Amino acid sequence: MTFIYYIDLLGTMVFAISGAMAANRNGIDIFGATFMGFVTAIGGGSLRDVFLNIRPVWVEDGNYLLAILVGVVISIILNKQLDNFARTLFLFDAIGIGFFTVVGVEKSLAYDSSAISAVMLGMFSACMGGVIRDVLMNVTPLILRKEIYASACLAGAIIYVLLTFTSITAGMNAFISAAVVFVIRFISVRYNLSLPSVPNAMKE
Amino acid sequence: MTFIYYIDLLGTMVFAISGAMAANRNGIDIFGATFMGFVTAIGGGSLRDVFLNIRPVWVEDGNYLLAILVGVVISIILNKQLDNFARTLFLFDAIGIGFFTVVGVEKSLAYDSSAISAVMLGMFSACMGGVIRDVLMNVTPLILRKEIYASACLAGAIIYVLLTFTSITAGMNAFISAAVVFVIRFISVRYNLSLPSVPNAMKE
Amino acid sequence: MTFIYYIDLLGTMVFAISGAMAANRNGIDIFGATFMGFVTAIGGGSLRDVFLNIRPVWVEDGNYLLAILVGVVISIILNKQLDNFARTLFLFDAIGIGFFTVVGVEKSLAYDSSAISAVMLGMFSACMGGVIRDVLMNVTPLILRKEIYASACLAGAIIYVLLTFTSITAGMNAFISAAVVFVIRFISVRYNLSLPSVPNAMKE
Repeated sequence: MTFIYYIDLLGTMVFAISGAMAANRNGIDIFGATFMGFVTAIGGGSLRDVFLNIRPVWVEDGNYLLAILVGVVISIILNKQLDNFARTLFLFDAIGIGFFTVVGVEKSLAYDSSAISAVMLGMFSACMGGVIRDVLMNVTPLILRKEIYASACLAGAIIYVLLTFTSITAGMNAFISAAVVFVIRFISVRYNLSLPSVPNAMKE
Repeated sequence: MTFIYYIDLLGTMVFAISGAMAANRNGIDIFGATFMGFVTAIGGGSLRDVFLNIRPVWVEDGNYLLAILVGVVISIILNKQLDNFARTLFLFDAIGIGFFTVVGVEKSLAYDSSAISAVMLGMFSACMGGVIRDVLMNVTPLILRKEIYASACLAGAIIYVLLTFTSITAGMNAFISAAVVFVIRFISVRYNLSLPSVPNAMKE
Repeated sequence: MTFIYYIDLLGTMVFAISGAMAANRNGIDIFGATFMGFVTAIGGGSLRDVFLNIRPVWVEDGNYLLAILVGVVISIILNKQLDNFARTLFLFDAIGIGFFTVVGVEKSLAYDSSAISAVMLGMFSACMGGVIRDVLMNVTPLILRKEIYASACLAGAIIYVLLTFTSITAGMNAFISAAVVFVIRFISVRYNLSLPSVPNAMKE
């Protein structure tokens, strides 16, 4: 339990770094960068919790906001170096969305959502922070562009829900499902894969 | 009760078709189209429920997500034909917003909102899904452009609330109010009517 | 208590005027202007309440929506004159965000948020209505541009939380903290101050 908690804080910090870096690249001031770090890190989980009609975890536990502040400070101090670590950040992000998807599905099922809604809310947990970040920066959200990101989370969420019907342990299930998200995301970027859009799909 | 339930699922499906078609027209991939179908279909009702501090219905009842998936599949399969059915879709949409407005007002009153808030939340139920869709597609929302859409819903919502003070039955009230929305929407598009903006209004 | 209530209604009205005026300047029709007034006035407080998992106050108390309607009507009637009162409106806005920040922090603490989250939610109360307004108008939100606005609210919120650990009365604390927001905002606009962005900060 404690282990999961610290992983969750770590994931929150990584997402905050990614959000703040996006703001830094656009010349937004340090307050705005902090705000974007916050939104990117807690947007997805907060939306999930709002739909589950429970309080987002950061409202009562200040450690999440502290983790975000640490992430923002890291993004400022290591601003130039972080760009050299783009590859490392990509790997962290791919691990992070896998983890957040699994946590999101688990929490939704624990709060009595239907299986199909848990899939949706698991994907939301991992992806909606980035969507809100993109909307605030006034660009079309990544998940509406031709990249396999949210669909990797969706696949992992579906597998997690299906495996809950088997005798597999929750820990093993979490590991497998998060790995599926990571592998799909990694392979799709490595080989530049994308899903078809409808008009193209029709022509084939 | 069961009848209303199926109408609600049908309305959800029609909105999903409209959201997915908007995505298809913009060359967004099939995942993004599904996501836009979902957002358009459940955005308005979810926002209403979040403000009422209750769970959106789709969180516990997976049938709504299934209805959305069916709508998205229809939008993909019939992609070219649907454009020929633009007129039919317009009529469905005009009926749909009337229905969703009435359901939204009823639900808000049932959960102890004030009469004036119920009007607002009824309009939200019908229109905010489209607003969120437009924000995600990075275009100015339809309801801020010169077309009578949300104002038709507002008129229907006001009439519904006013008629609850009379001896009319709830069913008859729902029918009249939804018809008002439909007729205003239909006439305004047919005769290209729009509301004035303030500077113009001042010059007159 | 009653005094605070009327101040809250007044603040709501002032924010509605500002939202409706932004819409009027963009040639949006009178419905859209009303909608923008509403969103600007209640967006921040509603988001705070949704995160606290309580109902926004306007859902049950119709007076808030009436205050917004009055604000919108004022913005229409006095459309040309209001532009001459830009300075007055700026002062009202600076007082308003100070007041809304303090109310937001107080309410969050009263509903058992952590101290650091109360700071965040206090800032949200004052600023997120404007953020939602800007997102809907499809422009980059003010708080991501180089102006000291949300950071003034953040400073006031931090001071309020710190002073709750002293023996100062709640009323005096509210006055001091709101004054801090006002003074920072006023001075930063008067002397055209702004926070650094990260690349610039790094070069120095």
